Amino acid sequence: MLKPRAALAAIALALAAPANAADDARAKFVKTPTGYLMVLRRGDDVIASLEKLAEEQKIPSASLTGIGFLSDVTFGFFDFGKKEFQPKTFHDVEMASMTGTIAWKDGKPSVHAHAAAAGRDFNAVGGHVLAAKVGPGSVEVSVVVHDKQLQRLNDPSIGANVLQLD
Amino acid sequence: MLKPRAALAAIALALAAPANAADDARAKFVKTPTGYLMVLRRGDDVIASLEKLAEEQKIPSASLTGIGFLSDVTFGFFDFGKKEFQPKTFHDVEMASMTGTIAWKDGKPSVHAHAAAAGRDFNAVGGHVLAAKVGPGSVEVSVVVHDKQLQRLNDPSIGANVLQLD
Amino acid sequence: MLKPRAALAAIALALAAPANAADDARAKFVKTPTGYLMVLRRGDDVIASLEKLAEEQKIPSASLTGIGFLSDVTFGFFDFGKKEFQPKTFHDVEMASMTGTIAWKDGKPSVHAHAAAAGRDFNAVGGHVLAAKVGPGSVEVSVVVHDKQLQRLNDPSIGANVLQLD
Repeated sequence: MLKPRAALAAIALALAAPANAADDARAKFVKTPTGYLMVLRRGDDVIASLEKLAEEQKIPSASLTGIGFLSDVTFGFFDFGKKEFQPKTFHDVEMASMTGTIAWKDGKPSVHAHAAAAGRDFNAVGGHVLAAKVGPGSVEVSVVVHDKQLQRLNDPSIGANVLQLD
Repeated sequence: MLKPRAALAAIALALAAPANAADDARAKFVKTPTGYLMVLRRGDDVIASLEKLAEEQKIPSASLTGIGFLSDVTFGFFDFGKKEFQPKTFHDVEMASMTGTIAWKDGKPSVHAHAAAAGRDFNAVGGHVLAAKVGPGSVEVSVVVHDKQLQRLNDPSIGANVLQLD
Repeated sequence: MLKPRAALAAIALALAAPANAADDARAKFVKTPTGYLMVLRRGDDVIASLEKLAEEQKIPSASLTGIGFLSDVTFGFFDFGKKEFQPKTFHDVEMASMTGTIAWKDGKPSVHAHAAAAGRDFNAVGGHVLAAKVGPGSVEVSVVVHDKQLQRLNDPSIGANVLQLD
């Protein structure tokens, strides 16, 4: 049995927990011989979830693939003239594929993911993923971890991030 | 030399072999340091072949990627209102990507795969793979095996299967 | 300090270096626990770069996934009647996914890659990759190496290469 002070601390901790504490109680990933397997559920932010995994598990760098159902996905087509992404958002789509890498930038995880997705007409759209939110159903992501801490740096000549290998 | 009874047993076994015994003589996969590499040929059922691999090799769970030529692929777009897949079949397409996972459900292998594919006009379609048959040419599938036996369970609130991690 | 003859040899070697020696000084890949992670830059030929990696690193066989920005990609749709690829080239596209394998044919590396890609309208196209050149930005490729030396052979009945497992 918990002593009163410990019990109070436990309650304080529970109250301080984020609003989605119930969701967080569920395991979102398992370790595998080569990395991690994640399962995200409705409302989860795909990119933020991968960044959190990278931070908590101290992933030096990684490659990933994934599939699932998205309520919202925003693709960006990079305009090298304007040096910015032209965004477009699609709703309620099966993510046919997500492929990418995890590295670090300015001390924070940096996820670079591209995807193809299709709605109920099955016509596929795709590109660089700026944001993706899991819809009803789930998103499964397979992460293969690498051992070298890799950085992404902005290349000023193009205005875009590039994965550095040395 | 085989004794008569053993010879009879061998003949009985041969006669009991499936009609596609000749096909089965060809190796459909090799083991790799991280899992398996499969090559399927014309007429092979992609999902059934992966289920067979999982069953015979006792794969606890796995992630997969693949490409190839399909004579038929049926995608399903999940209608969360009706809790069922709305199917559509496409013929003679290059499978630009297949991505998915292998787990278990009710004691049987459960393959969850999404894909993007394109015909001779190169316009891509995609989604959840309900069925896929290899066309002339081949389908190559790379399987990365995980060590935890994972289950897929039907989530009654959405009517769809979800990969369980705990 | 180098002896005169050695110094001369070093200079001769430097002069004999290819025109893109400056580019080649940059590391194009790192080793990972499961294979390699490549980063290609503007102007790099994706298929040739993977063939070079296979040759230099003596890769017996491998599976790969990748993403990036392409200035040019030529897809081929295989016409099994004519036994040849019908090609079509697309420009300035985000490669949403590339998936494939590396094996050997007639003593040379043989890369088989399919991809999906989308331009500024986000509509995806895809198929068998005949050629792909990196645009501004980069292409990242993750390679998982296998231990068996695998061959690709032309199957005369279809006129296309097929990965052999035995």
